Amino acid sequence: MSLELTILGCHSATPRVNAHPTAQYLEINSRHFLIDCGEGTQRQMRKYKVGFSKINHIFISHLHGDHFFGLIGLISTFGILSREKPLHIYGPKGIKELIDIQLTYSKSHINFELVFHELTSKKSELIFEDNKVEVRTIPLNHRVYTNGFLFKEKPKPRNLNIDVIKQYSEIDICDYNNLKAGRDFVLSNGDTIKNEVLTKEPSKPLSYAYCSDTSYKPEIKDVIENSDLLYHESTFLSDREDLAKKTKHSTAKQAAKIAKASDVKKLILGHYSSRYNDVSLFKKEAEEVFEEVILADAGKKISICS
Amino acid sequence: MSLELTILGCHSATPRVNAHPTAQYLEINSRHFLIDCGEGTQRQMRKYKVGFSKINHIFISHLHGDHFFGLIGLISTFGILSREKPLHIYGPKGIKELIDIQLTYSKSHINFELVFHELTSKKSELIFEDNKVEVRTIPLNHRVYTNGFLFKEKPKPRNLNIDVIKQYSEIDICDYNNLKAGRDFVLSNGDTIKNEVLTKEPSKPLSYAYCSDTSYKPEIKDVIENSDLLYHESTFLSDREDLAKKTKHSTAKQAAKIAKASDVKKLILGHYSSRYNDVSLFKKEAEEVFEEVILADAGKKISICS
Repeated sequence: MSLELTILGCHSATPRVNAHPTAQYLEINSRHFLIDCGEGTQRQMRKYKVGFSKINHIFISHLHGDHFFGLIGLISTFGILSREKPLHIYGPKGIKELIDIQLTYSKSHINFELVFHELTSKKSELIFEDNKVEVRTIPLNHRVYTNGFLFKEKPKPRNLNIDVIKQYSEIDICDYNNLKAGRDFVLSNGDTIKNEVLTKEPSKPLSYAYCSDTSYKPEIKDVIENSDLLYHESTFLSDREDLAKKTKHSTAKQAAKIAKASDVKKLILGHYSSRYNDVSLFKKEAEEVFEEVILADAGKKISICS
Repeated sequence: MSLELTILGCHSATPRVNAHPTAQYLEINSRHFLIDCGEGTQRQMRKYKVGFSKINHIFISHLHGDHFFGLIGLISTFGILSREKPLHIYGPKGIKELIDIQLTYSKSHINFELVFHELTSKKSELIFEDNKVEVRTIPLNHRVYTNGFLFKEKPKPRNLNIDVIKQYSEIDICDYNNLKAGRDFVLSNGDTIKNEVLTKEPSKPLSYAYCSDTSYKPEIKDVIENSDLLYHESTFLSDREDLAKKTKHSTAKQAAKIAKASDVKKLILGHYSSRYNDVSLFKKEAEEVFEEVILADAGKKISICS
């Protein structure tokens, strides 16, 4: 099982020459997701060779411009690229109206179904699942309705212990799926061979929690605990904790406290305010509380295998 | 008098890493205008050091995404930069609704007046003037309602011929404005000194015609003739004149024919289709018809002084 996150942009507010607004590309258990879509995201996708045709699901955390102003351009480009597969957009109520009106006025011809999943719940809810992955919302606390997203691999089937299985001539290939699903095998003489003898533990499902934008909200631990990877916004350093509180953002220290309390394995920081020239200060501050800290940067890939 | 055009983007359709959608920054007789605003324009403005505070008027030719998807982001950024001066947007009907709805949903707080001038006329009309510049629409022929724009300096006051003026002791400094305005001077003895003796011809007002997007439309000559600078879209080469006709775009040759028939001084080509790797072919084709051809390129500045 594997998970790879590509940072396409991780700066707050307005785009600048070398500071791109939020967007991330996540590959998890063979599924491909786009998370947030600030202005210029499609250019960043091309720059970092993210396959446009792989994206079937886009998750928008909230309707501040630096998280979605690039969405209409991306949808329009999908149309120009003759996309036919449906595209699912998950985001706050209003996103459908916003996109539809722009498609109408710009006469952007799209030959694919655009499926909007408008979110309103203030509780964590399952919003996507298939046989490989499930996605849940992480209700956050920001100036507008905001969700983070928890991406979790589905448990993999158990692994066959072929050497042991071959000792039992009665076990046929067509029995393998049942074994992978965890079932014991009953021989013709009535004896039961326990599944744990015939199979091995699969690798642990991986999970990624995306939390932006938000003020410090310790309760999110209930949703994100034990995640392998956590991205948590850190717009400010503790020197401006007052401003973080006022604007409902977080400091690097607060992001680290969330990571520690939630027992995640690694913390990625991002959404840096432009007032700070030296982003290494974010890592330094967070590391006073939590050890495994990574600074988001456009183009950076973070991979986890299990 | 002077005119300087900065190309911020000049490629058609979708943004790519080194191909930015249409936007131009025009300085003309001390006025500063933004023309079209494809996605990523604000980043290009920063890259090429276009002062955000200088822009008070934005002209949008039509509502295809590659000409305006960057507008909401730019307006939002003006808000973040605490703009207070009004911002005037000229564009097709619908642009107000498009921008208003996005400002509402994104809760972008702007403390300046946003004044929309929605255009519907199919005739050339005066849409802006002050004591320095006037701007007229150039009705174009595209798949959606489209205007180009003609930017023209107002005639400058005549220049004083100080050496001659000093020969007449009766002429006082407070008479200078009348002389600049072209009036003769009447001496106390009744004699008239002709204005042409006391002043010199001012430099000729400069003009810039922006024509994108459009199919080949020779009638625009009536509006743009004798312009000092013409930007005319050339999405295709003549090898795809069929496609130009179908999509209501132009070829390089057609742009050159317009330039020649309209007796402009220089032609700038742009809005290149991504099917062509070598944009020099556009210049080559146009030069078979018209001599002074410039290829638009992001960051290029074209200046004219008179």
